[in-house]
Amino acid sequence: MSDSPPGVADLLGVLAYAELTAFLRLAEDAARLAPTLTDRAALGDLAVTEYAHFRLLSDRLTALGTDPEEAMAPFVGPLDDWHARTAPHDWLEALVKAYVGTGIALDFYREAATRVDEDTRRLVDEVLVDGGRSQFAVERVRAAIENDHVVCGRLALWARRLVGESLSQGRRVVEARPELAALLVEAAGEDITRMFGRLTEAHGERMSALGLTPGP
Amino acid sequence: MSDSPPGVADLLGVLAYAELTAFLRLAEDAARLAPTLTDRAALGDLAVTEYAHFRLLSDRLTALGTDPEEAMAPFVGPLDDWHARTAPHDWLEALVKAYVGTGIALDFYREAATRVDEDTRRLVDEVLVDGGRSQFAVERVRAAIENDHVVCGRLALWARRLVGESLSQGRRVVEARPELAALLVEAAGEDITRMFGRLTEAHGERMSALGLTPGP
Repeated sequence: MSDSPPGVADLLGVLAYAELTAFLRLAEDAARLAPTLTDRAALGDLAVTEYAHFRLLSDRLTALGTDPEEAMAPFVGPLDDWHARTAPHDWLEALVKAYVGTGIALDFYREAATRVDEDTRRLVDEVLVDGGRSQFAVERVRAAIENDHVVCGRLALWARRLVGESLSQGRRVVEARPELAALLVEAAGEDITRMFGRLTEAHGERMSALGLTPGP
Repeated sequence: MSDSPPGVADLLGVLAYAELTAFLRLAEDAARLAPTLTDRAALGDLAVTEYAHFRLLSDRLTALGTDPEEAMAPFVGPLDDWHARTAPHDWLEALVKAYVGTGIALDFYREAATRVDEDTRRLVDEVLVDGGRSQFAVERVRAAIENDHVVCGRLALWARRLVGESLSQGRRVVEARPELAALLVEAAGEDITRMFGRLTEAHGERMSALGLTPGP
Protein backbone atom coordinates (compact mmCIF):
# COMPACT_ATOMS: atom_id res chain seq x y z
CA MET A 1 0.00 0.00 0.00
CA SER A 2 2.84 2.39 0.82
CA ASP A 3 6.29 3.24 -0.58
CA SER A 4 7.52 5.11 2.52
CA PRO A 5 9.13 3.52 5.59
CA PRO A 6 6.48 2.63 8.21
CA GLY A 7 7.86 5.03 10.81
CA VAL A 8 7.41 7.96 8.42
CA ALA A 9 3.81 7.00 7.56
CA ASP A 10 3.11 6.67 11.29
CA LEU A 11 4.63 10.07 12.06
CA LEU A 12 2.69 11.79 9.27
CA GLY A 13 -0.47 9.85 10.20
CA VAL A 14 -0.42 10.77 13.89
CA LEU A 15 0.36 14.39 13.04
CA ALA A 16 -2.41 14.52 10.40
CA TYR A 17 -5.01 13.18 12.82
CA ALA A 18 -3.71 15.44 15.60
CA GLU A 19 -4.19 18.47 13.34
CA LEU A 20 -7.61 17.37 12.03
CA THR A 21 -8.94 16.74 15.51
CA ALA A 22 -7.31 19.90 16.94
CA PHE A 23 -9.16 21.85 14.23
CA LEU A 24 -12.49 20.30 15.19
CA ARG A 25 -11.98 20.65 18.96
CA LEU A 26 -10.78 24.26 18.75
CA ALA A 27 -13.84 25.12 16.67
CA GLU A 28 -16.01 23.41 19.26
CA ASP A 29 -14.32 25.29 22.13
CA ALA A 30 -14.70 28.55 20.21
CA ALA A 31 -18.44 27.95 19.74
CA ARG A 32 -19.01 26.75 23.30
CA LEU A 33 -16.70 28.83 25.47
CA ALA A 34 -15.48 32.05 23.82
CA PRO A 35 -16.76 35.05 25.85
CA THR A 36 -16.92 37.45 22.88
CA LEU A 37 -17.28 37.19 19.10
CA THR A 38 -13.72 38.57 18.75
CA ASP A 39 -12.38 35.74 20.95
CA ARG A 40 -14.47 33.28 18.97
CA ALA A 41 -12.90 34.50 15.75
CA ALA A 42 -9.38 34.44 17.27
CA LEU A 43 -9.75 30.78 18.27
CA GLY A 44 -11.29 30.20 14.84
CA ASP A 45 -8.07 31.51 13.27
CA LEU A 46 -6.08 28.92 15.22
CA ALA A 47 -8.50 26.18 14.18
CA VAL A 48 -8.22 27.05 10.49
CA THR A 49 -4.41 27.03 10.68
CA GLU A 50 -4.53 23.49 12.09
CA TYR A 51 -6.78 22.47 9.23
CA ALA A 52 -4.33 23.83 6.63
CA HIS A 53 -1.63 21.73 8.29
CA PHE A 54 -3.85 18.66 8.16
CA ARG A 55 -4.25 19.17 4.40
CA LEU A 56 -0.47 19.46 3.87
CA LEU A 57 0.18 16.25 5.81
CA SER A 58 -2.66 14.40 4.13
CA ASP A 59 -1.39 15.43 0.66
CA ARG A 60 2.12 14.30 1.60
CA LEU A 61 0.83 10.87 2.65
CA THR A 62 -1.03 10.54 -0.65
CA ALA A 63 2.14 11.56 -2.55
CA LEU A 64 4.06 8.83 -0.70
CA GLY A 65 1.48 6.24 -1.82
CA THR A 66 -0.15 5.93 1.61
CA ASP A 67 -3.91 6.24 2.13
CA PRO A 68 -4.27 9.08 4.71
CA GLU A 69 -7.31 7.44 6.30
CA GLU A 70 -5.30 4.23 6.83
CA ALA A 71 -2.31 6.14 8.20
CA MET A 72 -4.48 8.07 10.69
CA ALA A 73 -6.61 5.12 11.84
CA PRO A 74 -4.29 3.73 14.58
CA PHE A 75 -4.23 7.12 16.32
CA VAL A 76 -7.95 7.91 16.38
CA GLY A 77 -8.56 6.05 19.67
CA PRO A 78 -5.68 7.52 21.73
CA LEU A 79 -6.16 11.09 20.43
CA ASP A 80 -9.95 11.07 20.81
CA ASP A 81 -9.47 9.76 24.35
CA TRP A 82 -6.98 12.51 25.09
CA HIS A 83 -9.47 15.15 23.95
CA ALA A 84 -12.34 13.53 25.87
CA ARG A 85 -10.23 13.44 29.05
CA THR A 86 -9.08 17.04 28.66
CA ALA A 87 -12.32 18.74 27.58
CA PRO A 88 -12.00 22.30 28.95
CA HIS A 89 -14.74 23.57 31.27
CA ASP A 90 -14.26 27.25 30.55
CA TRP A 91 -12.52 29.70 28.26
CA LEU A 92 -9.27 29.91 30.28
CA GLU A 93 -8.94 26.12 30.41
CA ALA A 94 -9.44 26.08 26.63
CA LEU A 95 -6.62 28.61 26.15
CA VAL A 96 -4.23 26.74 28.47
CA LYS A 97 -5.03 23.53 26.60
CA ALA A 98 -4.44 25.16 23.20
CA TYR A 99 -1.04 26.43 24.36
CA VAL A 100 0.35 23.98 26.94
CA GLY A 101 -1.36 20.72 25.95
CA THR A 102 -0.78 21.11 22.23
CA GLY A 103 2.75 22.39 22.93
CA ILE A 104 3.81 19.15 24.65
CA ALA A 105 2.35 17.00 21.88
CA LEU A 106 4.10 19.02 19.18
CA ASP A 107 7.46 18.80 21.01
CA PHE A 108 7.19 15.00 20.91
CA TYR A 109 6.50 14.98 17.18
CA ARG A 110 9.42 17.35 16.59
CA GLU A 111 11.76 14.99 18.45
CA ALA A 112 10.53 12.04 16.40
CA ALA A 113 11.12 13.96 13.16
CA THR A 114 14.84 14.65 13.67
CA ARG A 115 15.95 11.44 11.93
CA VAL A 116 13.51 11.15 9.02
CA ASP A 117 14.31 12.16 5.42
CA GLU A 118 14.83 15.84 4.73
CA ASP A 119 11.57 16.42 2.80
CA THR A 120 9.49 14.94 5.60
CA ARG A 121 11.40 16.87 8.25
CA ARG A 122 10.92 20.14 6.39
CA LEU A 123 7.15 19.51 6.19
CA VAL A 124 6.95 18.57 9.88
CA ASP A 125 8.89 21.71 10.83
CA GLU A 126 6.48 23.77 8.74
CA VAL A 127 3.34 22.43 10.41
CA LEU A 128 4.87 22.55 13.90
CA VAL A 129 5.86 26.20 13.74
CA ASP A 130 3.98 28.30 16.30
CA GLY A 131 2.53 31.01 14.10
CA GLY A 132 1.47 33.47 16.74
CA ARG A 133 -0.63 30.89 18.59
CA SER A 134 1.24 31.60 21.80
CA GLN A 135 0.75 35.34 21.87
CA PHE A 136 -3.04 35.09 21.72
CA ALA A 137 -3.38 32.55 24.56
CA VAL A 138 -0.53 33.99 26.63
CA GLU A 139 -1.91 37.53 26.71
CA ARG A 140 -5.42 36.46 27.69
CA VAL A 141 -4.34 34.02 30.39
CA ARG A 142 -1.82 36.46 31.91
CA ALA A 143 -4.47 39.18 32.08
CA ALA A 144 -6.94 36.81 33.76
CA ILE A 145 -4.63 35.51 36.50
CA GLU A 146 -3.07 38.84 37.40
CA ASN A 147 -3.73 39.32 41.10
CA ASP A 148 -6.01 36.29 41.19
CA HIS A 149 -4.31 33.47 43.09
CA VAL A 150 -7.37 31.22 43.01
CA VAL A 151 -7.62 31.18 39.21
CA CYS A 152 -3.84 30.89 38.97
CA GLY A 153 -3.80 27.81 41.20
CA ARG A 154 -6.70 26.21 39.38
CA LEU A 155 -5.06 26.69 35.95
CA ALA A 156 -1.70 25.40 37.23
CA LEU A 157 -3.46 22.20 38.37
CA TRP A 158 -5.24 21.98 35.01
CA ALA A 159 -1.90 22.28 33.17
CA ARG A 160 -0.45 19.48 35.31
CA ARG A 161 -3.42 17.30 34.42
CA LEU A 162 -2.88 18.04 30.70
CA VAL A 163 0.74 16.87 31.02
CA GLY A 164 -0.28 13.67 32.80
CA GLU A 165 -2.91 12.82 30.20
CA SER A 166 -0.48 13.61 27.37
CA LEU A 167 2.15 11.26 28.79
CA SER A 168 -0.31 8.42 29.31
CA GLN A 169 -1.83 8.74 25.82
CA GLY A 170 1.65 9.19 24.32
CA ARG A 171 2.65 5.88 25.87
CA ARG A 172 -0.41 4.20 24.30
CA VAL A 173 0.57 5.61 20.90
CA VAL A 174 4.16 4.37 20.96
CA GLU A 175 3.17 1.00 22.43
CA ALA A 176 0.76 0.50 19.53
CA ARG A 177 3.25 1.68 16.88
CA PRO A 178 6.75 0.27 17.49
CA GLU A 179 8.06 1.95 14.31
CA LEU A 180 7.15 5.35 15.72
CA ALA A 181 8.81 4.44 19.03
CA ALA A 182 11.91 3.41 17.07
CA LEU A 183 12.04 6.86 15.42
CA LEU A 184 11.94 8.51 18.84
CA VAL A 185 14.62 6.25 20.34
CA GLU A 186 16.84 6.66 17.30
CA ALA A 187 16.42 10.44 17.50
CA ALA A 188 17.29 10.46 21.19
CA GLY A 189 20.39 8.36 20.49
CA GLU A 190 22.03 7.03 23.61
CA ASP A 191 20.82 9.87 25.73
CA ILE A 192 17.07 9.57 26.18
CA THR A 193 17.42 11.47 29.47
CA ARG A 194 18.53 14.54 27.56
CA MET A 195 15.47 14.30 25.31
CA PHE A 196 13.15 14.26 28.32
CA GLY A 197 15.15 17.17 29.70
CA ARG A 198 14.42 19.17 26.54
CA LEU A 199 10.69 18.35 26.72
CA THR A 200 10.49 19.29 30.40
CA GLU A 201 12.36 22.53 29.83
CA ALA A 202 10.09 23.58 26.94
CA HIS A 203 7.02 22.84 29.09
CA GLY A 204 8.45 24.94 31.93
CA GLU A 205 9.02 27.84 29.55
CA ARG A 206 5.40 27.71 28.41
CA MET A 207 4.16 27.65 32.01
CA SER A 208 6.30 30.70 32.84
CA ALA A 209 5.09 32.53 29.73
CA LEU A 210 1.52 32.08 30.97
CA GLY A 211 2.50 33.31 34.41
CA LEU A 212 1.79 29.89 35.93
CA THR A 213 4.58 28.87 38.29
CA PRO A 214 5.00 25.19 39.15
CA GLY A 215 3.01 24.10 42.20
CA PRO A 216 4.66 23.27 45.57
CA MET B 1 -19.41 54.46 14.82
CA SER B 2 -20.04 53.66 11.16
CA ASP B 3 -19.72 55.46 7.81
CA SER B 4 -21.85 52.97 5.83
CA PRO B 5 -25.65 53.01 5.52
CA PRO B 6 -27.27 50.94 8.30
CA GLY B 7 -28.80 48.43 5.86
CA VAL B 8 -25.36 47.59 4.46
CA ALA B 9 -23.80 47.12 7.91
CA ASP B 10 -26.76 44.89 8.82
CA LEU B 11 -26.40 42.81 5.67
CA LEU B 12 -22.65 42.36 6.16
CA GLY B 13 -23.18 41.73 9.89
CA VAL B 14 -25.80 39.01 9.46
CA LEU B 15 -23.73 37.37 6.72
CA ALA B 16 -20.53 37.54 8.80
CA TYR B 17 -22.19 35.90 11.80
CA ALA B 18 -23.92 33.35 9.54
CA GLU B 19 -20.52 32.35 8.11
CA LEU B 20 -18.75 32.31 11.49
CA THR B 21 -21.40 30.15 13.08
CA ALA B 22 -21.73 27.91 9.99
CA PHE B 23 -17.99 27.29 10.28
CA LEU B 24 -18.28 26.29 13.93
CA ARG B 25 -21.39 24.12 13.44
CA LEU B 26 -20.02 22.32 10.39
CA ALA B 27 -16.83 21.54 12.32
CA GLU B 28 -18.96 20.24 15.19
CA ASP B 29 -21.06 18.08 12.83
CA ALA B 30 -17.87 16.78 11.19
CA ALA B 31 -16.43 15.76 14.57
CA ARG B 32 -19.69 14.30 15.86
CA LEU B 33 -21.35 12.67 12.85
CA ALA B 34 -18.97 11.96 9.94
CA PRO B 35 -18.84 8.19 9.37
CA THR B 36 -15.25 8.16 8.02
CA LEU B 37 -12.16 10.33 8.31
CA THR B 38 -12.51 11.19 4.61
CA ASP B 39 -16.05 12.48 5.21
CA ARG B 40 -14.81 14.36 8.26
CA ALA B 41 -12.16 16.07 6.14
CA ALA B 42 -14.69 16.84 3.37
CA LEU B 43 -17.03 18.59 5.80
CA GLY B 44 -13.94 20.26 7.27
CA ASP B 45 -13.20 21.72 3.81
CA LEU B 46 -16.68 23.28 3.74
CA ALA B 47 -16.21 24.64 7.25
CA VAL B 48 -12.90 26.29 6.40
CA THR B 49 -14.41 27.92 3.29
CA GLU B 50 -17.13 29.48 5.47
CA TYR B 51 -14.44 30.80 7.78
CA ALA B 52 -12.56 32.46 4.90
CA HIS B 53 -15.86 34.17 3.95
CA PHE B 54 -16.34 35.33 7.53
CA ARG B 55 -12.88 36.95 7.42
CA LEU B 56 -13.66 38.78 4.14
CA LEU B 57 -16.92 40.15 5.53
CA SER B 58 -15.38 41.11 8.84
CA ASP B 59 -12.52 42.96 7.08
CA ARG B 60 -15.05 44.77 4.90
CA LEU B 61 -17.00 45.93 7.96
CA THR B 62 -13.78 47.22 9.53
CA ALA B 63 -12.89 49.04 6.30
CA LEU B 64 -16.32 50.72 6.37
CA GLY B 65 -15.66 51.95 9.91
CA THR B 66 -18.03 49.48 11.57
CA ASP B 67 -16.97 47.25 14.47
CA PRO B 68 -17.67 43.68 13.23
CA GLU B 69 -18.63 42.52 16.73
CA GLU B 70 -21.22 45.31 16.95
CA ALA B 71 -22.56 44.57 13.46
CA MET B 72 -22.95 40.85 14.21
CA ALA B 73 -24.46 41.24 17.69
CA PRO B 74 -28.17 41.66 16.69
CA PHE B 75 -28.08 38.38 14.76
CA VAL B 76 -26.44 36.12 17.35
CA GLY B 77 -29.75 35.24 19.05
CA PRO B 78 -31.81 34.34 15.94
CA LEU B 79 -28.97 32.44 14.22
CA ASP B 80 -27.93 30.54 17.36
CA ASP B 81 -31.60 29.61 17.86
CA TRP B 82 -31.84 28.44 14.25
CA HIS B 83 -28.85 26.16 14.73
CA ALA B 84 -30.12 24.88 18.07
CA ARG B 85 -33.51 24.05 16.52
CA THR B 86 -31.96 22.34 13.51
CA ALA B 87 -29.17 20.34 15.15
CA PRO B 88 -28.80 17.27 12.89
CA HIS B 89 -29.17 13.84 14.48
CA ASP B 90 -27.08 11.95 11.96
CA TRP B 91 -24.71 12.37 9.05
CA LEU B 92 -27.41 12.55 6.34
CA GLU B 93 -29.35 15.22 8.23
CA ALA B 94 -26.09 17.18 8.54
CA LEU B 95 -25.56 17.00 4.76
CA VAL B 96 -29.15 18.02 3.97
CA LYS B 97 -28.79 20.93 6.38
CA ALA B 98 -25.46 22.03 4.85
CA TYR B 99 -27.05 22.03 1.38
CA VAL B 100 -30.76 22.85 1.75
CA GLY B 101 -30.83 24.87 4.97
CA THR B 102 -27.79 26.99 4.13
CA GLY B 103 -29.05 27.34 0.54
CA ILE B 104 -32.29 29.02 1.60
CA ALA B 105 -30.49 31.42 3.93
CA LEU B 106 -27.98 32.38 1.24
CA ASP B 107 -30.76 33.01 -1.31
CA PHE B 108 -32.31 35.54 1.09
CA TYR B 109 -29.01 37.37 1.52
CA ARG B 110 -28.49 37.39 -2.25
CA GLU B 111 -31.92 39.00 -2.74
CA ALA B 112 -31.13 41.65 -0.11
CA ALA B 113 -27.83 42.45 -1.84
CA THR B 114 -29.27 43.37 -5.25
CA ARG B 115 -29.71 47.05 -4.37
CA VAL B 116 -26.57 47.82 -2.35
CA ASP B 117 -23.45 49.57 -3.71
CA GLU B 118 -21.40 47.65 -6.27
CA ASP B 119 -18.39 46.90 -4.02
CA THR B 120 -20.62 45.38 -1.36
CA ARG B 121 -22.60 43.39 -3.93
CA ARG B 122 -19.42 41.99 -5.47
CA LEU B 123 -18.22 40.85 -2.04
CA VAL B 124 -21.59 39.30 -1.20
CA ASP B 125 -21.64 37.47 -4.55
CA GLU B 126 -18.14 36.17 -3.84
CA VAL B 127 -18.99 34.73 -0.43
CA LEU B 128 -22.33 33.33 -1.62
CA VAL B 129 -20.89 31.36 -4.53
CA ASP B 130 -21.38 27.61 -4.13
CA GLY B 131 -17.84 26.37 -4.55
CA GLY B 132 -18.51 22.69 -4.99
CA ARG B 133 -20.48 22.46 -1.75
CA SER B 134 -23.41 20.98 -3.59
CA GLN B 135 -21.60 18.14 -5.30
CA PHE B 136 -20.26 16.72 -2.05
CA ALA B 137 -23.61 16.69 -0.23
CA VAL B 138 -25.67 15.80 -3.29
CA GLU B 139 -23.65 12.69 -4.19
CA ARG B 140 -23.69 11.28 -0.67
CA VAL B 141 -27.39 11.90 -0.05
CA ARG B 142 -28.42 10.49 -3.46
CA ALA B 143 -26.39 7.34 -2.84
CA ALA B 144 -27.97 6.88 0.61
CA ILE B 145 -31.60 7.25 -0.43
CA GLU B 146 -31.40 5.14 -3.59
CA ASN B 147 -33.98 2.42 -3.17
CA ASP B 148 -34.62 3.41 0.45
CA HIS B 149 -38.06 5.00 0.73
CA VAL B 150 -37.92 5.20 4.51
CA VAL B 151 -34.74 7.30 4.59
CA CYS B 152 -36.02 9.36 1.65
CA GLY B 153 -39.26 10.20 3.49
CA ARG B 154 -37.45 11.04 6.69
CA LEU B 155 -35.02 13.40 4.95
CA ALA B 156 -37.84 15.08 2.99
CA LEU B 157 -39.58 15.81 6.30
CA TRP B 158 -36.30 17.08 7.75
CA ALA B 159 -35.83 19.45 4.78
CA ARG B 160 -39.37 20.78 5.29
CA ARG B 161 -38.58 21.44 8.94
CA LEU B 162 -35.39 23.31 7.92
CA VAL B 163 -37.47 25.56 5.65
CA GLY B 164 -40.00 26.25 8.39
CA GLU B 165 -37.33 27.13 10.93
CA SER B 166 -35.53 29.33 8.40
CA LEU B 167 -38.68 31.30 7.66
CA SER B 168 -39.52 31.83 11.30
CA GLN B 169 -35.97 32.92 12.24
CA GLY B 170 -35.79 35.05 9.08
CA ARG B 171 -38.91 36.87 10.23
CA ARG B 172 -37.29 37.53 13.62
CA VAL B 173 -34.22 38.96 11.89
CA VAL B 174 -36.10 41.40 9.67
CA GLU B 175 -38.45 42.41 12.49
CA ALA B 176 -35.46 43.32 14.61
CA ARG B 177 -33.66 45.16 11.80
CA PRO B 178 -36.01 47.36 9.77
CA GLU B 179 -33.11 48.63 7.60
CA LEU B 180 -32.42 45.08 6.46
CA ALA B 181 -36.12 44.55 5.75
CA ALA B 182 -36.07 47.76 3.73
CA LEU B 183 -33.22 46.42 1.58
CA LEU B 184 -35.25 43.28 0.84
CA VAL B 185 -38.43 45.17 0.02
CA GLU B 186 -36.54 47.65 -2.16
CA ALA B 187 -34.87 44.75 -3.98
CA ALA B 188 -38.18 43.04 -4.58
CA GLY B 189 -39.65 46.26 -5.92
CA GLU B 190 -43.39 46.15 -6.33
CA ASP B 191 -43.41 42.45 -6.91
CA ILE B 192 -42.57 40.67 -3.67
CA THR B 193 -44.53 37.65 -4.92
CA ARG B 194 -41.98 37.16 -7.69
CA MET B 195 -39.14 37.24 -5.14
CA PHE B 196 -40.81 34.50 -3.11
CA GLY B 197 -41.34 32.63 -6.35
CA ARG B 198 -37.59 32.73 -7.03
CA LEU B 199 -36.78 31.51 -3.49
CA THR B 200 -39.30 28.66 -3.74
CA GLU B 201 -38.02 27.62 -7.15
CA ALA B 202 -34.38 27.54 -5.99
CA HIS B 203 -35.40 25.43 -2.99
CA GLY B 204 -37.28 23.01 -5.26
CA GLU B 205 -34.20 22.66 -7.47
CA ARG B 206 -32.05 21.76 -4.48
CA MET B 207 -34.58 19.16 -3.30
CA SER B 208 -34.65 17.59 -6.77
CA ALA B 209 -30.84 17.58 -6.94
CA LEU B 210 -30.80 15.55 -3.71
CA GLY B 211 -33.41 13.17 -5.10
CA LEU B 212 -35.95 14.32 -2.50
CA THR B 213 -39.33 14.89 -4.10
CA PRO B 214 -41.84 17.11 -2.29
CA GLY B 215 -44.12 15.18 0.05
CA PRO B 216 -47.81 14.51 -0.73
